Amino acid sequence: MRDVAIIGIGKTPFGAFPDRDLRSLATEAGSKALTDANVKPSEVEAFYLGNFAGPSFVGQSHLAPYIAASLGLTGIPAVRCEAACASSGAAFFQAVSTVGAGLYDLVLVIGVEKMTSQPTPRVTEILASAGDLEGEVKAGATFPALFAMIARRHMYQYGTTREQMSLVAVKNHANGARNPYAHMRKPVTLEQAMAGRLVAEPLNLYDCSLVSDGAAAVVVAPLERAGEFTARPVRVRGIAQASDFVALDLKDDITRFRATQKAAEKAYRMAGITARDIEFAEVHDCFTIAEIVALEDLGFVAKGEGGPYTQDGYTALNGPRPVNASGGLKSKGHPVGATGTGQLCDLVLQIRGEAGENQVERHSIGLAQNLGGSGATSVVTILSV
Amino acid sequence: MRDVAIIGIGKTPFGAFPDRDLRSLATEAGSKALTDANVKPSEVEAFYLGNFAGPSFVGQSHLAPYIAASLGLTGIPAVRCEAACASSGAAFFQAVSTVGAGLYDLVLVIGVEKMTSQPTPRVTEILASAGDLEGEVKAGATFPALFAMIARRHMYQYGTTREQMSLVAVKNHANGARNPYAHMRKPVTLEQAMAGRLVAEPLNLYDCSLVSDGAAAVVVAPLERAGEFTARPVRVRGIAQASDFVALDLKDDITRFRATQKAAEKAYRMAGITARDIEFAEVHDCFTIAEIVALEDLGFVAKGEGGPYTQDGYTALNGPRPVNASGGLKSKGHPVGATGTGQLCDLVLQIRGEAGENQVERHSIGLAQNLGGSGATSVVTILSV
Repeated sequence: MRDVAIIGIGKTPFGAFPDRDLRSLATEAGSKALTDANVKPSEVEAFYLGNFAGPSFVGQSHLAPYIAASLGLTGIPAVRCEAACASSGAAFFQAVSTVGAGLYDLVLVIGVEKMTSQPTPRVTEILASAGDLEGEVKAGATFPALFAMIARRHMYQYGTTREQMSLVAVKNHANGARNPYAHMRKPVTLEQAMAGRLVAEPLNLYDCSLVSDGAAAVVVAPLERAGEFTARPVRVRGIAQASDFVALDLKDDITRFRATQKAAEKAYRMAGITARDIEFAEVHDCFTIAEIVALEDLGFVAKGEGGPYTQDGYTALNGPRPVNASGGLKSKGHPVGATGTGQLCDLVLQIRGEAGENQVERHSIGLAQNLGGSGATSVVTILSV
Repeated sequence: MRDVAIIGIGKTPFGAFPDRDLRSLATEAGSKALTDANVKPSEVEAFYLGNFAGPSFVGQSHLAPYIAASLGLTGIPAVRCEAACASSGAAFFQAVSTVGAGLYDLVLVIGVEKMTSQPTPRVTEILASAGDLEGEVKAGATFPALFAMIARRHMYQYGTTREQMSLVAVKNHANGARNPYAHMRKPVTLEQAMAGRLVAEPLNLYDCSLVSDGAAAVVVAPLERAGEFTARPVRVRGIAQASDFVALDLKDDITRFRATQKAAEKAYRMAGITARDIEFAEVHDCFTIAEIVALEDLGFVAKGEGGPYTQDGYTALNGPRPVNASGGLKSKGHPVGATGTGQLCDLVLQIRGEAGENQVERHSIGLAQNLGGSGATSVVTILSV
């Protein structure tokens, strides 16, 4: 496997854009990434699209060639990868795998979702389809309910507190408020975050990520050729994707995601590092409890220590290991299919030192964790200078 | 790129199965393929699922880990590939690419679709989502209408006749009638095929493929290791996937599919052969005209000669180059996401000499062509002893 680099990134702001359709978001991100990479459409050899539910949200299937052709890409392999909320993480994993293996030199990955054109109950229903329809969904569980169960168990088993979860929200909103590409640029106080309207007890509105529109893209190339295109390539040091049961009741322990643990273990091994070496991270905080679990699954802290670690400020923007400096899904927004590539764009901005007001101090090696559903898919990526 | 082989196949019958759900079809095909390959679930290193519209047909997303876990596969990369009717061709392309590149040794590919649980108008609507929603679909075009335009133009430009299209149906129904796994095992006469109820002039009911449930799976391995698992490996000699515009009105010539031409050219080059060397083929006859166009795009005949070639019996089961010996999508059925892997299973059966009453005489090298939508995706695969 040869070394692989990200040579260009491009994203749209995340938000609610009633006047934008899915394709225009995707092509904007894709065009920006190609421009950033100094790559012409005719040079792109393969296209991977990460999209969770375009057919359900906007009615259009066959989205990979549909978007590719709009960018001037035809005659190449173009495929949509779907792995729930980890769809564009999975698309990127395919791109890195195939470029790393020498099949292609220049590959474009776009993640996109257009969610806000559907009414909220329909959005909830579409999102719930990433759970087990025959089991938990039929029983009435939506994703807030599933993560509420995870939170309850985590609180019971490790003493994680309501306040610790709210502190994740406070931190991520503070970060997102500084990020011009974030959906909800509004700081919240601890009091506000703890007093939010209940969604699924113990989770309230401030524990839940946002329903957003948006797209994010990256261009992948072999490291040995990166210099032809950019002076600022970012290396893919490690990457892995792992799967697990979809239904929560089939998991042996709902306070951890085996898929994240497995993917992290493989990604660290590939990079030849341990969790200790990760300077900053973008993790999948679809709910505040998910960020706490991620800190543990990724080995940043021992099991059960994610809450105190947050409370003690370790993950703050100016802390020793900033997590979700971008604002995370909580504040930046969670256009499902765009979330994985969005995290990668944010890591690249940090590593290049271009993260503006959100720039972290130590930014030579960062990690992204992109989770699908309640943990049936997880993709862990490590990027460095 | 190292040589790759199919070491096991498994399929369900194609048909209308009100008592079967999507997952049970997929796991049946997957289990059969693993058994056929003498591979244990714990040995599988990656899983690619080909599925067009499970979320729309049955409401379930995140299908790759959902199905994988039911087969005992967890902790591995599992992703759903969607490329309309070429979804499982695209999934297989990923599998061959990654095994060929040395990333994995044992990869499972399943294609599945469960279509018959929806009423016909909804099925038509879901299928139409693989066309351009903003353009042709909004204007009222469904897939029969799009292929009717292709047929009209082909008739006008090359003199293709109503009878030649019907002869595709007669041949494929005759073949499907002998195939125990086919959906509609009913021979039709030329008179019947020409007098079918009009669907979209000039296409009648006998020109259209079937709405079906079903699944088909293959196990992919490096050729150098195939002997550990099976005495009858089938080599992947060439494979390519290509994309094109989704909307028919953006294509420069609707009587040919550029994606098929491009994919075929690359697959022949990879195999070091020409079209002349192909002894038999399974092509994507979603409509009878599509088989005629495929014969031309694949280079079996010159442009415009697909009709006469069919009429003269060249593609018959006992002809010099049998096409769709299985019955094709027309008679075997077209559970969209299962069609690509289904074609591969049929090629493997032929190459192994296990195709029963449908066995063709020369069966050492065959080709499968899997088309997405009205040609925005095409995957061409060449298999041999």
